[in-house]
Amino acid sequence: MSKRIAGPEIERLIQLLAKVPGLGPRSARRAALHLIKKKEQLLAPLAAAMGEAVDKVRVCSTCGNVDTSDPCMICTDPLRDPTTIIVVEDVSDLWALERAGAMNARFHVLGGTLSPLDGVGPDQLTIRQLVTRIAEGGVSEVILAVNATVEGQTTAHYLTDQLSGFDVKITRLAHGVPVGGELDYLDEGTLSAALKSRTVF
Amino acid sequence: MSKRIAGPEIERLIQLLAKVPGLGPRSARRAALHLIKKKEQLLAPLAAAMGEAVDKVRVCSTCGNVDTSDPCMICTDPLRDPTTIIVVEDVSDLWALERAGAMNARFHVLGGTLSPLDGVGPDQLTIRQLVTRIAEGGVSEVILAVNATVEGQTTAHYLTDQLSGFDVKITRLAHGVPVGGELDYLDEGTLSAALKSRTVF
Ligand SMILES: [Zn+2]
Ligand SMILES: [Zn+2]
Repeated sequence: MSKRIAGPEIERLIQLLAKVPGLGPRSARRAALHLIKKKEQLLAPLAAAMGEAVDKVRVCSTCGNVDTSDPCMICTDPLRDPTTIIVVEDVSDLWALERAGAMNARFHVLGGTLSPLDGVGPDQLTIRQLVTRIAEGGVSEVILAVNATVEGQTTAHYLTDQLSGFDVKITRLAHGVPVGGELDYLDEGTLSAALKSRTVF
Repeated sequence: MSKRIAGPEIERLIQLLAKVPGLGPRSARRAALHLIKKKEQLLAPLAAAMGEAVDKVRVCSTCGNVDTSDPCMICTDPLRDPTTIIVVEDVSDLWALERAGAMNARFHVLGGTLSPLDGVGPDQLTIRQLVTRIAEGGVSEVILAVNATVEGQTTAHYLTDQLSGFDVKITRLAHGVPVGGELDYLDEGTLSAALKSRTVF
């Protein structure tokens, strides 16, 4: 607000809310007001939940996931197949794959992609930890579920290289038409990949 | 998430964030992850700001605004014209008018509009408090800045009635074309109101 119309506590709340992805300055004001009106039902529980997250959330030292325990719930789940590791760039990718529920495997979060121009080399990612996990044995397949971007593919090639000495199968996600996707909205690379990998109907 | 993939603290954070206006379930997950990653820079300060708001925010007993002091910063501002009161439905309207910065007046927040079917009568709004403020004297104009809806206009008529015994001018916002608004997107009511209230060019 250009003119101060409320105590600094409210303005600070608006400013911080505006930094939450999905909220801009305008929605931050609306959100702040809603939270203030629902002080007991929403603002207080949310403040407490955030405080708990600050205290308890940590990065899993095995896989790079975030959780309230280390090792994380996925790494300690006895029902998961320990022989398959899905390598992702970010925790958000891990969550997305988990929502899809397609594989009951373990994960490894790289923390980004190789990007020499931005100063991101192998040591800035969790590549050494991944190699160590594979070296410890018991893993038969590594699925490189990195993004289909130049950086993602560069990183995939580097990882393949690093893991070439181990007796482990390295796979990647299939390219193709998204389920429900309309062909004329897709780029040519996707279309030709989908054609090449066509399956029997 | 259908399958539990993180500790209950993180899932609770996501659930509560999903109740913030502007964030749905999907953006709540993204927001939670971003907050967790920026634990020290964003999550901790936001948790603290929310905690402070829980402790300090109250409703102004004079005007119905929310602030960290009662009476609020607007009611105690010696530079504001105390002879004009702008009546609004909601604190969000007060904030919007303050951002416009068009008037340096005091406010009165009704807390909604009359809506008998929803059980909202005069006693559910701050109408008695408004009448008391006017009865105390010193106010020469009441601007009814309620929404241009049926409920808003019904409420405006009721207020005019309640204040008819006092020596106070009652005005309302002008109808017209929004600044920058395109005519062919406007409804007929707005257009005919804008024509009727046309001004000399
Ligand atoms: Zn883990
Ligand atoms: Zn006030």
